Amino acid sequence: MVKKKVIKLHSLEGIKLSSIYSGMYPKKRLDLSIIELDEKSIVSGVFTKNKAKSPSVIISEKHLKSGKPRYLIINSGNANAGTGIDGIKDIEKYCKKLEKEFSCNFKDILVFSTGVIGERIKKDNIIKAIPKLKKGLDKENWVNFSKSILTTDTKNKTSSKRLNINGEIITITGVAKGSGMIHPNMATMLSFVATDIKISKTLLNSIHKKVIDKSYNMITVDGDTSTNDSSILISTAKSKLSYEKLNDKDKKIFYNGIESLYIELAKYIIRDGEGATKFISININKIKDKKQGKSIGMSVANSLLVKTALFAEDPNWGRILSAIGNSDTSIKDFSNIEIYLGKILIFKNNKMYEKYTEKSAAKYLKNKDIEINIVINNGKERVTVWTSDLSYEYIKINAEYRTWH
Amino acid sequence: MVKKKVIKLHSLEGIKLSSIYSGMYPKKRLDLSIIELDEKSIVSGVFTKNKAKSPSVIISEKHLKSGKPRYLIINSGNANAGTGIDGIKDIEKYCKKLEKEFSCNFKDILVFSTGVIGERIKKDNIIKAIPKLKKGLDKENWVNFSKSILTTDTKNKTSSKRLNINGEIITITGVAKGSGMIHPNMATMLSFVATDIKISKTLLNSIHKKVIDKSYNMITVDGDTSTNDSSILISTAKSKLSYEKLNDKDKKIFYNGIESLYIELAKYIIRDGEGATKFISININKIKDKKQGKSIGMSVANSLLVKTALFAEDPNWGRILSAIGNSDTSIKDFSNIEIYLGKILIFKNNKMYEKYTEKSAAKYLKNKDIEINIVINNGKERVTVWTSDLSYEYIKINAEYRTWH
Repeated sequence: MVKKKVIKLHSLEGIKLSSIYSGMYPKKRLDLSIIELDEKSIVSGVFTKNKAKSPSVIISEKHLKSGKPRYLIINSGNANAGTGIDGIKDIEKYCKKLEKEFSCNFKDILVFSTGVIGERIKKDNIIKAIPKLKKGLDKENWVNFSKSILTTDTKNKTSSKRLNINGEIITITGVAKGSGMIHPNMATMLSFVATDIKISKTLLNSIHKKVIDKSYNMITVDGDTSTNDSSILISTAKSKLSYEKLNDKDKKIFYNGIESLYIELAKYIIRDGEGATKFISININKIKDKKQGKSIGMSVANSLLVKTALFAEDPNWGRILSAIGNSDTSIKDFSNIEIYLGKILIFKNNKMYEKYTEKSAAKYLKNKDIEINIVINNGKERVTVWTSDLSYEYIKINAEYRTWH
Repeated sequence: MVKKKVIKLHSLEGIKLSSIYSGMYPKKRLDLSIIELDEKSIVSGVFTKNKAKSPSVIISEKHLKSGKPRYLIINSGNANAGTGIDGIKDIEKYCKKLEKEFSCNFKDILVFSTGVIGERIKKDNIIKAIPKLKKGLDKENWVNFSKSILTTDTKNKTSSKRLNINGEIITITGVAKGSGMIHPNMATMLSFVATDIKISKTLLNSIHKKVIDKSYNMITVDGDTSTNDSSILISTAKSKLSYEKLNDKDKKIFYNGIESLYIELAKYIIRDGEGATKFISININKIKDKKQGKSIGMSVANSLLVKTALFAEDPNWGRILSAIGNSDTSIKDFSNIEIYLGKILIFKNNKMYEKYTEKSAAKYLKNKDIEINIVINNGKERVTVWTSDLSYEYIKINAEYRTWH
């Protein structure tokens, strides 16, 4: 469902990438990558809150605290999760090879995996591939990298932009994967974004968390994710421009640039949702409290009844109403709430709007992009949550995901 | 999926029922019922926590507090939800007819509806049917009643038993409907159970809440339900036996009898889950805290990845592990947790058990009844949650639910 447009991915000085087929899948495809960072790089990481964390996540979190990341190794095809001490040992073994090849320290390596849970990773394949990966390192390899991290995704997800800030050009380039339906505890989400602006680790962390709250956390409920979810934001610090020295207006230009890139990647994940036939934006308007807005939006977005009705292009709006009532909103009187499909007013004054016709709503639902607009009328905040519908294809993909074993 | 067995439904003195086709559905079937209670009856009600409550629920809750229920009127085919003040007025109109026919007061009537949300109820059909329903009142009509409340259910759900307590025979008879998948905000659940034991309203309420926590709340997350969910427990007070006067052992016999009847009805709902091909029991064993046990069980039960894997008979146990990690358990170290499919040990010491073979697990998953046994090993409590798998058929049912409009 991702619209085909040729996106030029701007490379960044100080970041080299290399991808290869290492044999994680029976069918030949890119499945293993290394990223080499310049030593001045600053790295920020946000990881899954799932308590059954993958050994990869445990090690990356630890190394981000104690080390200074120079090498990232990323594989698809196996999540190395539910593997306990064996999983840790496997990582240590293939990182030994990285240490040797690149004369680096284990604590300067970050590790990422996505794929089937509960099976040992083919560490020997990785070890064997590392020298070849080393030879392939090049700053222009972003697209191959974006392809190597895919699992059930049907499209690679990339975004890249250049911002003119005070006469200087700032580059932001990112890739992501994740194709599970938009629901807690679905498929792994990985995201790697880099910029060349100079910035302190503290500020980079703070911007990273803020943009995730506007993007990935609006498609997967925060704190309720897969065993391997990871988001990495890198500053190469190669630009002359220092974020700290910018005036407020220029800081805003940079922030808006990075936020819109994260939202773009998040939307690509939804558009490529497993079996998705619809892209659904749920806007909660005129609400007092953003947190409640998100709760209402997520309750609608996660309702299987709403999702199946949208797949069927059936304007069964009562299911939207019921989902709002199931959120942990403190609103008990629904008489100020309005529900729209696109611009079509359906529900007002606690009942169906008298001029509403099912025919017009059914026609609107033929679109691929659907907006559900919910107006709460008790404040000034606004929240958007994105989701997809639930189709036969979703069941098929998830019932057959392991058939290649 | 409900096993065919002929269940004798014991009638109770003091309860008469009557069911009819009133035209709620285009196709002829029972869709409207009245229950008449003896004036000495005691009634306990537990209702949905959805904030978009149906007018039926609003009125029944109010009348249970202020009135002394004598008449229950129950329809399927229309939930009378999302109808606001119009929905209230419609109920008032058809209850006027009830008041007149039975010389009763509005505040002594309880109202229940299940079906499509957001559409006005055919009140004239109900008004027209009431005199006919009156003629049909009979204490033997439980089975017809159980059929009249069904929506997407494929089977009626009934249970009935007689207990010998201290030489006296106590009868308990109940019916339920609900066929939405076992997940928050799914289809409406209705339950009506009656017994002849004498009991105070306070104690009846307390027993009612306790058995719901062991049955219906183990299949639908409490506080997160449809607009119309209602559970009614009636005492006709026709027996000589008074619950308050029983010794502890006899109290226990009565409590166990009623609890097992509720669990039986709850299990029928799961077995008749929309599109269900498997009946799944998730046992959380040796846990310190029941609330955490339920959270873990529900996280596994509600995981679409687990549900689709079970539908595919694929022992993708990593998805179970990930779902445990997504619950709000405080457990961070998984090294004491064991996961079994039936009696087959899969996960122990934080990794796959060395003697586990996928072949044996795949064979086990061919069964219709599946047990997932999770041993936490930090306490002595035990919790069971029941669920079904997620099939193509579920999508079909929910995408096509309104096609008769």
